[in-house]
Amino acid sequence: MSKLPALASDAVLKQSAPVPESFVEVKGIDYSKDEAYNMRAVDLISSMKTMGFQASSVSQACDIVNDMRSWRGKHRDELPEHEIKGEFDEQGYQKTTIFMGYTSNLISSGLRDTLRYLVQHKMVSAIVASAGGIEEDLIKCLAPTYMGEFALPGKGLRDQGMNRIGNLLVPNDNYCKFEEWIVPVLDKCLEEQEEAMKRLGADGLNADSEAVWTPSRLIDRLGKEINDESSVLYWAHKNNIPIFCPALTDGSIGDMLFFHTFKASPQQLRLDIVSDIRKINSMSMEASRAGMLILGGGLIKHHICNACLMRNGADYAVYINTGQEFDGSDAGARPDEAISWGKIKADAKSVKVYADVSVVFPLIVAATFAAQKPN
Amino acid sequence: MSKLPALASDAVLKQSAPVPESFVEVKGIDYSKDEAYNMRAVDLISSMKTMGFQASSVSQACDIVNDMRSWRGKHRDELPEHEIKGEFDEQGYQKTTIFMGYTSNLISSGLRDTLRYLVQHKMVSAIVASAGGIEEDLIKCLAPTYMGEFALPGKGLRDQGMNRIGNLLVPNDNYCKFEEWIVPVLDKCLEEQEEAMKRLGADGLNADSEAVWTPSRLIDRLGKEINDESSVLYWAHKNNIPIFCPALTDGSIGDMLFFHTFKASPQQLRLDIVSDIRKINSMSMEASRAGMLILGGGLIKHHICNACLMRNGADYAVYINTGQEFDGSDAGARPDEAISWGKIKADAKSVKVYADVSVVFPLIVAATFAAQKPN
Amino acid sequence: MSKLPALASDAVLKQSAPVPESFVEVKGIDYSKDEAYNMRAVDLISSMKTMGFQASSVSQACDIVNDMRSWRGKHRDELPEHEIKGEFDEQGYQKTTIFMGYTSNLISSGLRDTLRYLVQHKMVSAIVASAGGIEEDLIKCLAPTYMGEFALPGKGLRDQGMNRIGNLLVPNDNYCKFEEWIVPVLDKCLEEQEEAMKRLGADGLNADSEAVWTPSRLIDRLGKEINDESSVLYWAHKNNIPIFCPALTDGSIGDMLFFHTFKASPQQLRLDIVSDIRKINSMSMEASRAGMLILGGGLIKHHICNACLMRNGADYAVYINTGQEFDGSDAGARPDEAISWGKIKADAKSVKVYADVSVVFPLIVAATFAAQKPN
Amino acid sequence: MSKLPALASDAVLKQSAPVPESFVEVKGIDYSKDEAYNMRAVDLISSMKTMGFQASSVSQACDIVNDMRSWRGKHRDELPEHEIKGEFDEQGYQKTTIFMGYTSNLISSGLRDTLRYLVQHKMVSAIVASAGGIEEDLIKCLAPTYMGEFALPGKGLRDQGMNRIGNLLVPNDNYCKFEEWIVPVLDKCLEEQEEAMKRLGADGLNADSEAVWTPSRLIDRLGKEINDESSVLYWAHKNNIPIFCPALTDGSIGDMLFFHTFKASPQQLRLDIVSDIRKINSMSMEASRAGMLILGGGLIKHHICNACLMRNGADYAVYINTGQEFDGSDAGARPDEAISWGKIKADAKSVKVYADVSVVFPLIVAATFAAQKPN
Repeated sequence: MSKLPALASDAVLKQSAPVPESFVEVKGIDYSKDEAYNMRAVDLISSMKTMGFQASSVSQACDIVNDMRSWRGKHRDELPEHEIKGEFDEQGYQKTTIFMGYTSNLISSGLRDTLRYLVQHKMVSAIVASAGGIEEDLIKCLAPTYMGEFALPGKGLRDQGMNRIGNLLVPNDNYCKFEEWIVPVLDKCLEEQEEAMKRLGADGLNADSEAVWTPSRLIDRLGKEINDESSVLYWAHKNNIPIFCPALTDGSIGDMLFFHTFKASPQQLRLDIVSDIRKINSMSMEASRAGMLILGGGLIKHHICNACLMRNGADYAVYINTGQEFDGSDAGARPDEAISWGKIKADAKSVKVYADVSVVFPLIVAATFAAQKPN
Repeated sequence: MSKLPALASDAVLKQSAPVPESFVEVKGIDYSKDEAYNMRAVDLISSMKTMGFQASSVSQACDIVNDMRSWRGKHRDELPEHEIKGEFDEQGYQKTTIFMGYTSNLISSGLRDTLRYLVQHKMVSAIVASAGGIEEDLIKCLAPTYMGEFALPGKGLRDQGMNRIGNLLVPNDNYCKFEEWIVPVLDKCLEEQEEAMKRLGADGLNADSEAVWTPSRLIDRLGKEINDESSVLYWAHKNNIPIFCPALTDGSIGDMLFFHTFKASPQQLRLDIVSDIRKINSMSMEASRAGMLILGGGLIKHHICNACLMRNGADYAVYINTGQEFDGSDAGARPDEAISWGKIKADAKSVKVYADVSVVFPLIVAATFAAQKPN
Repeated sequence: MSKLPALASDAVLKQSAPVPESFVEVKGIDYSKDEAYNMRAVDLISSMKTMGFQASSVSQACDIVNDMRSWRGKHRDELPEHEIKGEFDEQGYQKTTIFMGYTSNLISSGLRDTLRYLVQHKMVSAIVASAGGIEEDLIKCLAPTYMGEFALPGKGLRDQGMNRIGNLLVPNDNYCKFEEWIVPVLDKCLEEQEEAMKRLGADGLNADSEAVWTPSRLIDRLGKEINDESSVLYWAHKNNIPIFCPALTDGSIGDMLFFHTFKASPQQLRLDIVSDIRKINSMSMEASRAGMLILGGGLIKHHICNACLMRNGADYAVYINTGQEFDGSDAGARPDEAISWGKIKADAKSVKVYADVSVVFPLIVAATFAAQKPN
Repeated sequence: MSKLPALASDAVLKQSAPVPESFVEVKGIDYSKDEAYNMRAVDLISSMKTMGFQASSVSQACDIVNDMRSWRGKHRDELPEHEIKGEFDEQGYQKTTIFMGYTSNLISSGLRDTLRYLVQHKMVSAIVASAGGIEEDLIKCLAPTYMGEFALPGKGLRDQGMNRIGNLLVPNDNYCKFEEWIVPVLDKCLEEQEEAMKRLGADGLNADSEAVWTPSRLIDRLGKEINDESSVLYWAHKNNIPIFCPALTDGSIGDMLFFHTFKASPQQLRLDIVSDIRKINSMSMEASRAGMLILGGGLIKHHICNACLMRNGADYAVYINTGQEFDGSDAGARPDEAISWGKIKADAKSVKVYADVSVVFPLIVAATFAAQKPN
C-alpha cells in the first residue's frame, strides 16, 4: 500500500452525532478548592459522582441511601385504619422500610461497629444475616477477634487453636466461652417451649403458638441476654428490629444446638423456619416503600430480594459485593436480574457496587447515615 | 553510566540452587501422539496435570475425586458392633462418605443432569443445597428452563413474565405450575403433622417425634411425590441420600409455604432445623472417611465444612467456585482456611478450582465418575 | 393479616407470555447414551451448548472458531489484481486472517505446546504477545520450567534463585543461559544495522530501510536462530507468521538489550515500533475476513482490537480471560464495548469466556483445531 | 448416638494457645467520638487499619505511601561525587524515587485530575502508562469525555460514533480533533529526525543520538506542545518527570503514526524502545530508595517491577488492581511473587489492595498526598 486506504481513515475518523445536552462531563476532584485537602467523606463522594467506574457507583449508592432515608409519604392521620402499617417517622409520616443484609465476615471485621451504629439509631427496619453474623456478634462481647494475615498457614494455626477468617484470627477459646454463655440460655428456651407445649397440647404448633421458637425469636432473646451496648443483637432487641437468619444452625450456634440435643434428650429445642418467612414477607407487604441494603452475597441477598417480590419489588436497592454475573450465581447477579423477577421495581433506583464491603461501606456510611451526629 | 553496574547484573543473573530431583517439569499436550486428536476427557485431564495454573488444579481435583471414591477401609465383619457405621461398599468394605454441595443455579443449568447422574448411581452420600436447588429440580419436571442472554433487559422480561438466571430464562408460568403441584403435598404433610401431634400431645416436639417435619424430611417427601426419573430429588429419595437445606424457605418453596399459612390457618406446617443439624453432623461423625465436593459458595459450602468439623476435619476436599479470599468471605476462602478451623484435616488432600462450575464440572465428571459406564 | 393479600399472589403467580418457538431448552449430558462415558471433547462441547453460564460460552467459542476457520470467499482467479491480498487456502480461496493474542504466562505454562501446535500447522495468521511470551518460549528450549505452588513464600524462593509465576517455578539459571544464547545474536543484529546505516547514511530511517530493526523482525530472527521444533517462534519464522510485541523491552529480553547497550557502546541496537504498527494494521486492512482469538488481557487484547479498527471491525471474536468490566479496564471489557469503537463489526460473531485460559483452551482446541489430526 | 461423642466436642471446643501480647484487636469506627461524624479521609483511613479485609489493606497502603514519601537519607554534601544520583529533596537530602504506573482507563476517568495533581506537585519521579494513558490526557484538553453506562448496547453507540470505556463515553469527534492537533507535531518531529540524520549520517543510531526519538521523548514533546495546565503530560514536561510507554503505538497515537507513514513517505518517523529501557533502568539503579505505586495491571505493572529488578528490588510497593493470582497472570500476582524475582526486596513494605482504583485511590490520596495543601 502506498496510500492510506479510506477504509481505515473512515473507520478511525468516523464523525459522531452531536453530544446531547443532557450528557454529563467526566471530571474529578478540583484541587484548586480548599475542600480538596484534608477532605471530608461527603466531599469525596460528591467528587466521585463524575469520576466513572465504581467511583460513580459508590456515589450513586450514597444518593440512593439518602433517597430511601429521606422519603416520606402520608401522615398516619390521613390513612384509613387498614393502611396504617409499615414504618412511620416520629412526626407520623410514612417512611421506607429498610432491609439490610450482611454476611458473617462483616461482623467479624471492624464493620460490626458501623452495623451496630445503624441498628442502635434505628436507621434500618429489619436485618437478614448468616449464622456467623449472629454468633460472632455475641462472641465479640465475650472476647476479641484479632488482626492476622491471609497467608498464615492453616496447620500451624490449628495447632495453636487460632481460627482464620481472611486476614482475621479468632482464638478457639472464644467459642468455648460462647458455649458456656449460651447453654443456660438454650436451657431456658427449651423450658419455655416445654411449658407452652404442656399448656397447648395438640395445638402446640398452631399459628402464633408460644411453643414455637423461630430463628428470629431466638436471636431476639440472645440480644436481650447478652445485654451489651457494643452488640448489634442487643440494639436490635432494644429497638424491636427483627433479625432473620433461616439457616441459624449453620455455624457455631448450630454446634451448640447440636450439643444441646444430647444434653436435653429426650426433649429437644426446635426452631421453625415457616413462621419467620411469614414474618419477613409480611414486613415487605406492609411497607409503604421498601429499600434493600445488601452487603455481600448468598442467602442474605436472595432472602431480602425474595421478600420484596411479595410487594412486586423494592423501591430502592443497593448491592455491594464482589460477585460476578458470569457464573449465573445469585450473588453475582446485577439488580437488573432482580427486576426480571419482580424483586426490584422496574422504575426503582438501584445500583451494584463491585467492591469488598469493608472498603466502601465505611465511606458510604460516613457520607450518609453518619454525615451528621444523630440526636 | 558508561559501564553496566554489577548491581544490575548480579540481580538479573543471580545463580539458582540446583533443581531438586523431585521437581516436575511443566509440559502440555504431546501432539505427536494419536490420542492428542479427537481427545477424550481422561487424556485431556492427564495432560492438564503439568500445565500449571487452574489446568493443574482441575487435574488435581480429578485425582482427589478418584482417591475419595476408591478408598476402602476394613470389612464390616472385622469391626466391633459400635463401629459399624458410615458407608460400606457392596462387598462390605468401609468407604468414604461424600458430601456434595451445590447452589441453586447449577440445577437451573444443564448440570442438573450430571448431578442427577451422581445421585442416581449412589456416587455421593449426602447433599447440601440452597432452596432454589430443591425447587428448580421439581419445577423442571413440570416445565422447561430456556437459554437466554446475560444482557437481556429486566423490565422487558418482567413484562413478559420471563425470569432471568444469568443467561437462562424461566417462564413465570413454571412457578404457577409448581404451586398447583405442591399445595396438595403440603396439605398432606400438615395433616400428618397434626395427626402425630394429636397422638403425642405435649411430647410432640421430643426427639424422633413424627410430628416434627424438617427440611430434609420434606425434601425427601417431595422427591417421592414428584416420581420422575429426571429428578435429583427422586433419586435421592429412592437411594436414601439425604438432602439438607436449612434455609428451605428462601425461595419459591418459601413462597408456597408462606401462602399455605393463610390457607391452613389456624393450623400451620412447621419445619424444624435443629433435627437436621443433628442429622448431618451425625453423618459426619459416623463416616469412616469424609470427602467434600463443593460446587459454588455461601451456605452450601459452609454447611458441609461445619459438619466436617464434628469429625475434626474432612479427609478430602474439592472446592469449585469463583469466590476470592480478599474480601474475607467464606465463599472465597481457600481450603487452607478451613484447616485452621479443623474443618479439613491438615494432611487431607484438598484443592480449590477457581472457575465457573459449569465449565469444569462436566469435564471433571467425564474423567472420573463417568469415565466408565456404571453397572 | 389473616388473608393472603392479592399483592403477593399476583406478583408471585404472574402469568408469563407464551414461550416463543425459537426458544431453546436448557439441557445437559444425556447419560442414557454411550458417548456420555469416556467422553470425547467434541461430545462434551456439544452437550455444553445448552447447559448455560460459561459452559454455553465455551461451546459458542468453539462454534466461532470453527466458523472463522471454515469460511471461504472467492477464488484468487476471480479477483482483480489489487484485491489479491489477505489469506488464501491451498486451493486458492480467500480465508479468514486469524489474529491470536496471548500473554506471557501461557507460554510459561503447558499451553505452550498447544500454541506451538497452532503455529506449526499454520492455523493462525499473526500473533501478538507480551515480552515474556517471546523470551519464555526461547528459554524453554534451553532449560525447563517446573511445577510449584501459589503459596510458596517469596523470600525463600529468592534465596534459592527460583522465580515464581503463579504455581510455576523458573530457576534463575535459565535466564543466565538465555543471556549466553542471546548476546551473540544481538551482536549480529547490531552489526547488520550498522552495515546498512553505512550504506544508507541519512536515508537510514526511511521506509523499508534495512537498517531499521523492529520487534517483529528481531522476533523472527530469534525464531530462526533458536532452530528448535518445540518453539512457537521457530515455527512462526518457518511459516512466515509475524509475531508482534511492541513492548518487547518489557521483560528479560529488555534486560539483555539494556546490558547490550553497555557492551556495544557507542553503537546501539535500535528497535522501532512505528514500522510494526504499519505492518499489523496493513494485515488487518488486507484481510478478506478477520478473526480474533484473544487469550488473556492487557496489551495483547487491545493491540489486536485496535488493528481490527483499521478494517472497521473484526468478523469473529473470541475473548478468553478473567477480567471484569466493572473497573473500566480494557482487559475486562465485553466484546460489545469493542463494537462501540468499530473494532468488532456489529453483526460479527463474538463471545467472551470468563475463565482462566489454561482450563478452557485445551478443551476448545481439542474440539476444534485438533478435532482431527492435521495432514 | 445417645451421647455426644468426644470426637465432636474435642474438635469444636479445642483450647487455644494464649494470645500473644503483640496481637492487635479488630475494631472499627468509634461512634462515641465527634470525628466519627462528617468524617475526614485521614480519620476514616485511621479507623480502617484495624477493620480487616481490604479496609486494612487500604490503610496499610496509606502507611506505605507516607513512608516512601517521608524517607530521607544522607545530605548530598556528605556523598562522594559518584553517589550523587537519584532524588533529593529541597534541603538536599536523599529521597525515594517513586515510580507510578497507571492504565489508560484511569486517565479516561475523573482520576486524571488526581494523577495530574501528583505530577504537578512533583510527588512522583517517573511514570509508566499504556498508550491510552497518553493520548486520552491530550484529547481531554481538546474535548470532554462523558458519563455513560456499562450496559449501553454497542451497535447503537457505533451508529452515533460514541466510544464506550466502561461506563464512560468518548465521542469519536474527539479523535478527529486529536488528529488535527497531532499531525503538525509529528511533522515537526520527523523534520528534526531527518535533520539530525543528515548531520550524523551513519552514526545516526549511536547512543545519545539526536536523530533517535523514543516514546518518552515524544511524550515529553507532546506535553510541551499541549501547553494546558489540566494535563498530566504538560506538568510531566514542566517538572522533568519522564513518562515511559514502550507500546506507545498501541492506541490512537499508533493510528496517527500509522496514518503519518503514508503522509511522510518515503520518510518515516521512528520510535526506538531500546533507549527508553536504558533510561528507566538507569533511574531505578540510581535511586537511593525506590517505591512503586501501581494502579492497574498488565504492562504498566510489569514494567516498573522489571526496572526495580535492576536494583535488586523496590523498597516500597503498593499495588491496586482487581486481578487475581489464580490464572498465573502478572496482573494478578501478589507482591510476594515479585519478591521471588528480586523485583521487590524481601524486607520491603508492600501491599496489594484488591479494588477498582477509582474507588480507593481518591481516598488514599486524600489521606496522604493531599492531607495538606502543598506549598
